[in-house]
Amino acid sequence: MANETHAPLDVLILAAGLGTRMRSRTAKVLHKLGGLPLIAHVCRTAAALSPRHIYVVVGHQAEEVEAAVRQELDGDVRFIFQAEQRGTGDAVMAARAELEGADSTLLVLSGDVPLVRPETLGALIHQHRTHRGHGATCTLLAVRLEDPTGYGRIVRDADGRFERIVEQKDASPEERQIKEVNAGIYCFETRALFRALEKVRPTNAQGEYYLTDVPGILRAEGEDVSIYVHTDAREVAGINTRAELAEFERILRMRTLRRLMLDGVTIIDPMNTYIGPDVRIERDTVIYPNVHIEGRTMIGEECTIYPGARIVDSRLGNRVTVKDHSIIVASEIEDDCSVGPFAHLRMNAHLGEGAAIGNFVEVKKSRVGRKSKAMHLAYLGDATIGERTNIGAGTITCNYDGVRKHETIIEDDVKIGSDTMLVAPVRVGARSVTGAGSVVIRDVPPDTLVAGVPAVVKKHLYATSESKDVRSAAPAPDDQNAAGDEAPQMNPVSSDV
Amino acid sequence: MANETHAPLDVLILAAGLGTRMRSRTAKVLHKLGGLPLIAHVCRTAAALSPRHIYVVVGHQAEEVEAAVRQELDGDVRFIFQAEQRGTGDAVMAARAELEGADSTLLVLSGDVPLVRPETLGALIHQHRTHRGHGATCTLLAVRLEDPTGYGRIVRDADGRFERIVEQKDASPEERQIKEVNAGIYCFETRALFRALEKVRPTNAQGEYYLTDVPGILRAEGEDVSIYVHTDAREVAGINTRAELAEFERILRMRTLRRLMLDGVTIIDPMNTYIGPDVRIERDTVIYPNVHIEGRTMIGEECTIYPGARIVDSRLGNRVTVKDHSIIVASEIEDDCSVGPFAHLRMNAHLGEGAAIGNFVEVKKSRVGRKSKAMHLAYLGDATIGERTNIGAGTITCNYDGVRKHETIIEDDVKIGSDTMLVAPVRVGARSVTGAGSVVIRDVPPDTLVAGVPAVVKKHLYATSESKDVRSAAPAPDDQNAAGDEAPQMNPVSSDV
Amino acid sequence: MANETHAPLDVLILAAGLGTRMRSRTAKVLHKLGGLPLIAHVCRTAAALSPRHIYVVVGHQAEEVEAAVRQELDGDVRFIFQAEQRGTGDAVMAARAELEGADSTLLVLSGDVPLVRPETLGALIHQHRTHRGHGATCTLLAVRLEDPTGYGRIVRDADGRFERIVEQKDASPEERQIKEVNAGIYCFETRALFRALEKVRPTNAQGEYYLTDVPGILRAEGEDVSIYVHTDAREVAGINTRAELAEFERILRMRTLRRLMLDGVTIIDPMNTYIGPDVRIERDTVIYPNVHIEGRTMIGEECTIYPGARIVDSRLGNRVTVKDHSIIVASEIEDDCSVGPFAHLRMNAHLGEGAAIGNFVEVKKSRVGRKSKAMHLAYLGDATIGERTNIGAGTITCNYDGVRKHETIIEDDVKIGSDTMLVAPVRVGARSVTGAGSVVIRDVPPDTLVAGVPAVVKKHLYATSESKDVRSAAPAPDDQNAAGDEAPQMNPVSSDV
Repeated sequence: MANETHAPLDVLILAAGLGTRMRSRTAKVLHKLGGLPLIAHVCRTAAALSPRHIYVVVGHQAEEVEAAVRQELDGDVRFIFQAEQRGTGDAVMAARAELEGADSTLLVLSGDVPLVRPETLGALIHQHRTHRGHGATCTLLAVRLEDPTGYGRIVRDADGRFERIVEQKDASPEERQIKEVNAGIYCFETRALFRALEKVRPTNAQGEYYLTDVPGILRAEGEDVSIYVHTDAREVAGINTRAELAEFERILRMRTLRRLMLDGVTIIDPMNTYIGPDVRIERDTVIYPNVHIEGRTMIGEECTIYPGARIVDSRLGNRVTVKDHSIIVASEIEDDCSVGPFAHLRMNAHLGEGAAIGNFVEVKKSRVGRKSKAMHLAYLGDATIGERTNIGAGTITCNYDGVRKHETIIEDDVKIGSDTMLVAPVRVGARSVTGAGSVVIRDVPPDTLVAGVPAVVKKHLYATSESKDVRSAAPAPDDQNAAGDEAPQMNPVSSDV
Repeated sequence: MANETHAPLDVLILAAGLGTRMRSRTAKVLHKLGGLPLIAHVCRTAAALSPRHIYVVVGHQAEEVEAAVRQELDGDVRFIFQAEQRGTGDAVMAARAELEGADSTLLVLSGDVPLVRPETLGALIHQHRTHRGHGATCTLLAVRLEDPTGYGRIVRDADGRFERIVEQKDASPEERQIKEVNAGIYCFETRALFRALEKVRPTNAQGEYYLTDVPGILRAEGEDVSIYVHTDAREVAGINTRAELAEFERILRMRTLRRLMLDGVTIIDPMNTYIGPDVRIERDTVIYPNVHIEGRTMIGEECTIYPGARIVDSRLGNRVTVKDHSIIVASEIEDDCSVGPFAHLRMNAHLGEGAAIGNFVEVKKSRVGRKSKAMHLAYLGDATIGERTNIGAGTITCNYDGVRKHETIIEDDVKIGSDTMLVAPVRVGARSVTGAGSVVIRDVPPDTLVAGVPAVVKKHLYATSESKDVRSAAPAPDDQNAAGDEAPQMNPVSSDV
Repeated sequence: MANETHAPLDVLILAAGLGTRMRSRTAKVLHKLGGLPLIAHVCRTAAALSPRHIYVVVGHQAEEVEAAVRQELDGDVRFIFQAEQRGTGDAVMAARAELEGADSTLLVLSGDVPLVRPETLGALIHQHRTHRGHGATCTLLAVRLEDPTGYGRIVRDADGRFERIVEQKDASPEERQIKEVNAGIYCFETRALFRALEKVRPTNAQGEYYLTDVPGILRAEGEDVSIYVHTDAREVAGINTRAELAEFERILRMRTLRRLMLDGVTIIDPMNTYIGPDVRIERDTVIYPNVHIEGRTMIGEECTIYPGARIVDSRLGNRVTVKDHSIIVASEIEDDCSVGPFAHLRMNAHLGEGAAIGNFVEVKKSRVGRKSKAMHLAYLGDATIGERTNIGAGTITCNYDGVRKHETIIEDDVKIGSDTMLVAPVRVGARSVTGAGSVVIRDVPPDTLVAGVPAVVKKHLYATSESKDVRSAAPAPDDQNAAGDEAPQMNPVSSDV
């Protein structure tokens, strides 16, 4: 976009206002759309034009707005502080010291116009540069509205050239019939802009300096002002109320969903599916309604995401099934895993290939190895679990002593019995087994059956016959009124898969 | 509204019918809209007009309809029983004994027209009173429909004055072109109404007495009938089928959501958010899609309600986070609490400031103190929990002995270990600790560690060093084959926050 | 439909293509709509016409497509394999050996046109048979489109009779104005069809043989081609992209929901309710938004299904309440049961009359008897539970020994205490009680209290005084540091209902 034969392009984003009609303590440009602040969308669009500099005029909640901008633009962004908000003209004027002498083209954007596409601005800039060759110092973006009430109308002269912008309240009855309105997006020759800005007067009800006066001033001084007419009025509209915010949310969502569908993702009901603009999904994945996928989530091929799932900033491999009402945050799930229903994975949970997490199971900051399973009512926190291990129903890693967190390590091919408490730090060796209701308070060596409260070694197991052994080797009751030396069965693993 | 210079206003609501097209055992006016019976909406609107008396004609399920009315109108409401439903004229005639001689203006409403606004009726009454000065004894509410098929058309005379209402089947081809139809909402001079009603004849296919004949009868007798034309046809429409009920539900919902958005609540997707008409929400609260908020719920400022939550008749303070799929019924949540995901609060659960209830936790008829936490897999019923107490994963208050419920009291700064069974009635003293897997069957004094099945005192704790002490003071295994007098670690609290 | 006086009706369904614009590895006709493959819908519609034979041309994923067809048409269906896809004409030509000599009327359908109704095809066939009496050998189904771009236009001669179909790219500017287009659904006299097919040439950009050339060829040879104009263009449209698939899903859903509403089911928000076409629901049942009901589910009268529930291939009786976020798969629920919130019933769970399953409870392959309850945090797998039995919070049937599943039997009037582990195979006799935290590893006789890890007999109970007895007969602590021979209370059942 930055072309040697043209004056360099700078972008100025107006982001100082509060936005009274939002009825909010939060500055308007910090309100979220598709999970990102409005200003972030505008910054992305600006950056896509590869300008020389990006300037952002901040005012309300300047610190937070700057932080939101830096989140998107880590490089060369310059902030201009407008202490008092006295209109869009005043906002641009605040940048005078930085910009005034520049031999540049300045694209002026509003921080509350989040859906304008780089292609549209590229076309505006292109027209400006073409007309600039013929003397234009300003090109403004116009749209036609069926109901233009409230917008600044564009008055053209007899030859169809721009004459001035007339605001609703100043418009004559004839002018009010004009359906072509100013969208508030402009290209200026920077020096001409600041020359004209000096002549803007706050002669309006609000006593504000309006940038909308500038094109008329330029024209009155004999400069040419070019009009770029854009066909999609919604794209270049600003957000003033939360009702409009909701409407834009819908538009953005439909853009994203349409793209995904055309790329080969089945969205059963786009009206009721919530996928953020940065989400990537591979083909032949099926998304049920009432699903929310947010942040920088990546989902592979042939996955199925059932209703009520919410997936945030996570990576899913191929052929993963996420059953109803599962929540996955900041986690990683390898191919062929099954999650849910009612599973909760968070804070860097990692499931190896073919692992399965079932209902009412929470996994936090833990690794679950290949083909391991925890199918019912369990809490796994700060745990590392090997391969082919089965975690019985009701198992809890007791990882917190009231002060610090401790780790649980469970090796390969282990069978953790139902309702086992694993008091961390603790390690359960490969192929070992815990009886139902065990409270494991010290390490279990490999090939060992433990049981009891607290759990003690009941038997050493041998791989080839373990399952039979387990049933006959379970602990005798510890109450002598009970069955004496009879060896009651104790099912070592609690619940099926 | 009740003005000295006017005849007093009475309201008559017709609510006797079954509503055959609903295909229901339930009388039509008892079907719910926005969580309230249709008749409740009409009663509220009537009451907003401050009439002298409200009369309700009941018939089908008279008892239930009267109960629904009394729920809204505790004061002066009079019921008239229509034993057999023989048309709207017959329904009004049932009120003859009560009303006939009254020198009043009677507003006749249908119990199945729930969305009409008091402002609209106020305008109707105002016009009636004005025209009454010029002799009108009836004012009817008319709307214009693009497709008037099925509705009674309003035939005007050459001067544009009301002549009569002609039903669809009796209308000539020319009359069928009329797009102005009768909405079924009328103001009558009461005495004129009853005089005319006597002349209504059941000369129609159904053999019913139609109130729609009355304006024509009055006119034929030389009285003036005034027409109030309302622009919003949907507002004054009645509900005849469940498809219409669903459509009205949508309109009512959008009214509520639009009001909330303009007041400063972020509704991410209004098409998929369900908030009842009596819910109050303060500004800067964010409501995700797939959320249901019902009854007389009040939510403070800057809360976030995530997808799948349902909140009924509850009060939430400021900055409360309700995570996905949490259900909160008849409960109270103070500022800065966190609830869910997958939490279930009900029957007067109360969370103190900054408390947190996590996943797969049910809280019933219990108080959880300031900054206390129960983060995983727990059942708290009939419990009173102090401040800064941590409830470990898997904890259950065993509050039911098969006959009665019993209370559990847990004081401040307690650490309940994972999988602790608290067999009520029972009290755990301040700063005490239970080991993982404990079955607590009697009171635990303050500053005490208990563990085991059933739990016994293992150590007395001292506040300054409790957490270290706990780890070295946990019970030895009770099986002598185990580690002898070695003191194994037992993590007193089971799971992190 | 098959009438003696007519040539027999055969149906030919074209289902060989991949459907490139779906961007899928799966053949287009296998993509799902309303839970069924597209081809299943077309097969059902074809079968509803009672034709003599149904032929299906398969190609891509022939095996899977045949399986999907057989799922719907167990009887007389014949498959024709088209090895290479060279156009719709070529596809029909593949059936030549089977069909060529038949004296029949052949209805040609596309496997990707799933919403066409039997009534519409019946009308097409009727018209064809009528016109056939006057010599027509083909009747094609046409619709009028506001924007016909991309479709084959139907060119009529000066007398309004069919002349030919002209494809978009071959159409003259005048022909492009034609809004009447070919829907791709035809009735042919079979012998005439194959005669004409021989003359089709692949003289187009794709080098394919188009069936759309046949009507023009027939006409050019002097045969009559009749046009059946259908008014609902969406009904007869095909699916080419996943965006269209989503749109059809919506249409199908609305058809189903409208039918249910008119039959007396309350659907609070049809835009956000997902009910499959084969689901049956009786009147006065209320369905909240965000509910999914799939497969061959049957739901009785006066049930309430709360948000987030998903019910698949299950049967619910009358007055069943399914609370929020419950999942019910392949299960059966008798009258007056209550399920959820957060319940998970699957694999042939069966609830007897008035049973209740509460939050965070999973029931798999188990029978729960009349009025029995499991209200909190439990796993019931491979269990048979009697009547009036209460399952305490945290109860787990330990049904899996790592190799096989085992059964748990709990008889009538049992009280299973909180956190009881039932190590299967095991039986708990009638009226027995387990203490909180018990690990039951052997059968419990009737009228017996057991407790401990593992559980031992503590007391024999007598029906008349059991609840009082239980509280005084609970086990003493097994640690001698504890309360000596004092008999501490142990609440046998853990959590309220």
